[in-house]
Amino acid sequence: MNGKKLAGEKAVEYVENGMHLGLGTGSTVYYSILKLGELVNEGLDIKGMPTSKETEKLAKELGIPLIDESSVSELDVTIDGADEATPRFELIKGGGGALLREKVVASISKRFIVVADDSKYVDPLGKFPLPVEVVPFGWEITQKQISKLGCQPSLRQDGNEPFITDNGNYILDCYFETIDHPADLNVSLNMIPGVVENGLFVDMADAIVIGRKDGEIEEITKK
Amino acid sequence: MNGKKLAGEKAVEYVENGMHLGLGTGSTVYYSILKLGELVNEGLDIKGMPTSKETEKLAKELGIPLIDESSVSELDVTIDGADEATPRFELIKGGGGALLREKVVASISKRFIVVADDSKYVDPLGKFPLPVEVVPFGWEITQKQISKLGCQPSLRQDGNEPFITDNGNYILDCYFETIDHPADLNVSLNMIPGVVENGLFVDMADAIVIGRKDGEIEEITKK
Repeated sequence: MNGKKLAGEKAVEYVENGMHLGLGTGSTVYYSILKLGELVNEGLDIKGMPTSKETEKLAKELGIPLIDESSVSELDVTIDGADEATPRFELIKGGGGALLREKVVASISKRFIVVADDSKYVDPLGKFPLPVEVVPFGWEITQKQISKLGCQPSLRQDGNEPFITDNGNYILDCYFETIDHPADLNVSLNMIPGVVENGLFVDMADAIVIGRKDGEIEEITKK
Repeated sequence: MNGKKLAGEKAVEYVENGMHLGLGTGSTVYYSILKLGELVNEGLDIKGMPTSKETEKLAKELGIPLIDESSVSELDVTIDGADEATPRFELIKGGGGALLREKVVASISKRFIVVADDSKYVDPLGKFPLPVEVVPFGWEITQKQISKLGCQPSLRQDGNEPFITDNGNYILDCYFETIDHPADLNVSLNMIPGVVENGLFVDMADAIVIGRKDGEIEEITKK
């Protein structure tokens, strides 16, 4: 069975008629968006705010109406994937490079639903390198400051050039191995001048929907 | 008397032969840089890291050697101005729009010397609008989040267009009137997704050199 498809489709059960939705990016939430497209064609009335150009394109193709960014102050539900997720609702996101948009959208969502296959469900965080978005000016200085937090930060490349985010910044992929205190690290990283945002999502998710190869779906929700 | 000139020149006494310096931006540190240029011509051996293109140009004209940004991990002394400074070494900076570069440079300086005329020496902070650098994507959302911290954020304009920082971002000028807990506000602002950096410099300055119209110079140094 395809764990991603199972989780992606299951999460759509959180969606109700009339809702404003955040639409995440990636190979699992892809199935949520396909499903939403079907439901919209059957008459479901929703609007979506995409977290990437890729998702915007997909939503348009499927006929999902989009929200004007400048008028939004709150979303009802956001569905998005994660590179790692723990039972304590801690996440690493940003493998795809869209962590800032994803964090903006998640931060204004009343409910934030994470979808993943079971390979992403871990404890503790840290095997996956934590993406940190940094300003190009003085990035080597920023890199040195970040490394003092106990990791190896590596500049993400796109061929022979630095990878550039949608916001014109660089990504440092930070190899921690284990992240024991994600909440503290989240603050420490964001307080370094030159850091725009980091891929730790702490205490933001309300539910994690995990699809397993054996066809089971595990759903972890906040009490 | 010109308080700016008095303070700017006085601060150069912190500089010693062989030092690597951060060179701030603005109308007070301008006099520090002029003085440094004189001393370099008389044989002082220093290198400078400018916080803006404006300062870079001035330093080059005066023959002050510049440091290659990518090789720096520490500076001996940085001299820079402030829009507001308190007796507890809290600062508002960024009126000129270069707060991020200024904060990067200050953060790697062993000693950070602030120069100002007495009109900038206040208590508490907050009459001067706090500049907050934000990513253009979703800036209206970021603005709403910032306003919940108790201020009126206004998008800085450059004619009929938004002002663009050296890093390609926008500035929100945030009218607080009084800032009672700058350390907390500094963290709260930087934890909002979409905020790149803010103009609060807390516990970074080691000395404040204040020039008064009556010709007096007041020097406040950390114990």
